[in-house]
Amino acid sequence: MSEHIVSAFDQELTDMAGKIAEMGGLAERAFADAVSALVSQDLELARTTIRQDERLDALHHEVEVKLIEMIARRQPLGQDLREITAATRIANDLERVGDLAKNVAKRAIAIDSGLQSKKLAIGVEHMTELALSQLKQVLDAYTRKDAEAARRVQEADAEVDAIYTSIFRELLTYMMEDPRVITQCVHLLFCAKNIERIGDHATNIAENVYYMVTGERLPEERTKMDETMGPA
Amino acid sequence: MSEHIVSAFDQELTDMAGKIAEMGGLAERAFADAVSALVSQDLELARTTIRQDERLDALHHEVEVKLIEMIARRQPLGQDLREITAATRIANDLERVGDLAKNVAKRAIAIDSGLQSKKLAIGVEHMTELALSQLKQVLDAYTRKDAEAARRVQEADAEVDAIYTSIFRELLTYMMEDPRVITQCVHLLFCAKNIERIGDHATNIAENVYYMVTGERLPEERTKMDETMGPA
Repeated sequence: MSEHIVSAFDQELTDMAGKIAEMGGLAERAFADAVSALVSQDLELARTTIRQDERLDALHHEVEVKLIEMIARRQPLGQDLREITAATRIANDLERVGDLAKNVAKRAIAIDSGLQSKKLAIGVEHMTELALSQLKQVLDAYTRKDAEAARRVQEADAEVDAIYTSIFRELLTYMMEDPRVITQCVHLLFCAKNIERIGDHATNIAENVYYMVTGERLPEERTKMDETMGPA
Repeated sequence: MSEHIVSAFDQELTDMAGKIAEMGGLAERAFADAVSALVSQDLELARTTIRQDERLDALHHEVEVKLIEMIARRQPLGQDLREITAATRIANDLERVGDLAKNVAKRAIAIDSGLQSKKLAIGVEHMTELALSQLKQVLDAYTRKDAEAARRVQEADAEVDAIYTSIFRELLTYMMEDPRVITQCVHLLFCAKNIERIGDHATNIAENVYYMVTGERLPEERTKMDETMGPA
């Protein structure tokens, strides 16, 4: 294979990483805006966030088509193949993050009143900051092909899970104390679960970045003990 | 391209469809077993269902690798490309169905008591029957390349959504009436949501089958009015 061809393919891979980074930017933005709309009860922001998900879906579709075309034309092997496989999976994860953010924005509208409890708002915002920071770090690790940074993102997921567990319990307590807040709290529970799942997607991405760079599997995250589900 | 090559590729496509059907069988089984474990509080069945998800994940991985290899080797276009793209997406959806079923099985263990309410059990079982029937029908439509059958599956999703809405309301009512059932009802809410999402995956698969067969997009499902998120 001539130098020329190899370098053209490298350029294509770089362009693809750029598209993935663009998807990442949209997903981060949607996530941050959705939670902001929820906490501050900004319905206009919620509606904008819902609409903007179309852009992310369109970009995902474009990336999918381009990746298939690249595989067919380049028949990549080894490192190149790993980069394309990773890009495919990361694009899927980012599209899912967008869907989860959209769902939070929809629930911000459904709740129809902000987070009454200051403590609860702090919990949700803290969880969001952490998950958002994971997402940013893992996208950065992807761009820099930094396996070590990806590994750190995987490790940090336990903290998001711990906050989720604490929010879950707090919400149950509120519901037990005052039946009038049950509907609101149920929507918040689903929002918190969505944020926790965004953290899981960041972890998936971390695992794919690690594999892309090293060709080896990151050891499984410690067996996930979701305290909200067991052994209750 | 010689007849021989074409026919070898057709054979590969048929084998791939067989693998997808096998994934479909595992996903259906996991879903049915998880709900059965939930309704009858069969913890052993719940644990088996959780363990079996590994097989579906492994099969998904195998399918992914094989699909990339087929694209690289065959450089498919037109109908062939659509079949491979559809297979990729359908395999993703089935893997997600397996995850959702696993989550229901985990919650069956967390709940630690069956569905106390006969009415609620009937609702969950009815919703499951419908979603399971959609899944079976769409996998059958995939195998038979039947666009019309796929379109009917898309239409039927509204019914699953309607039952979800009714279960959602019923669960909220129980929680308001008796704070002691709140934790249990929250897990059931998540289970019902998971079942509703399995219905959504069946719809996604239907859209991909339709596109695979006809090369045209199925008109979007009517704007989804999830009443549980409506003006709460």
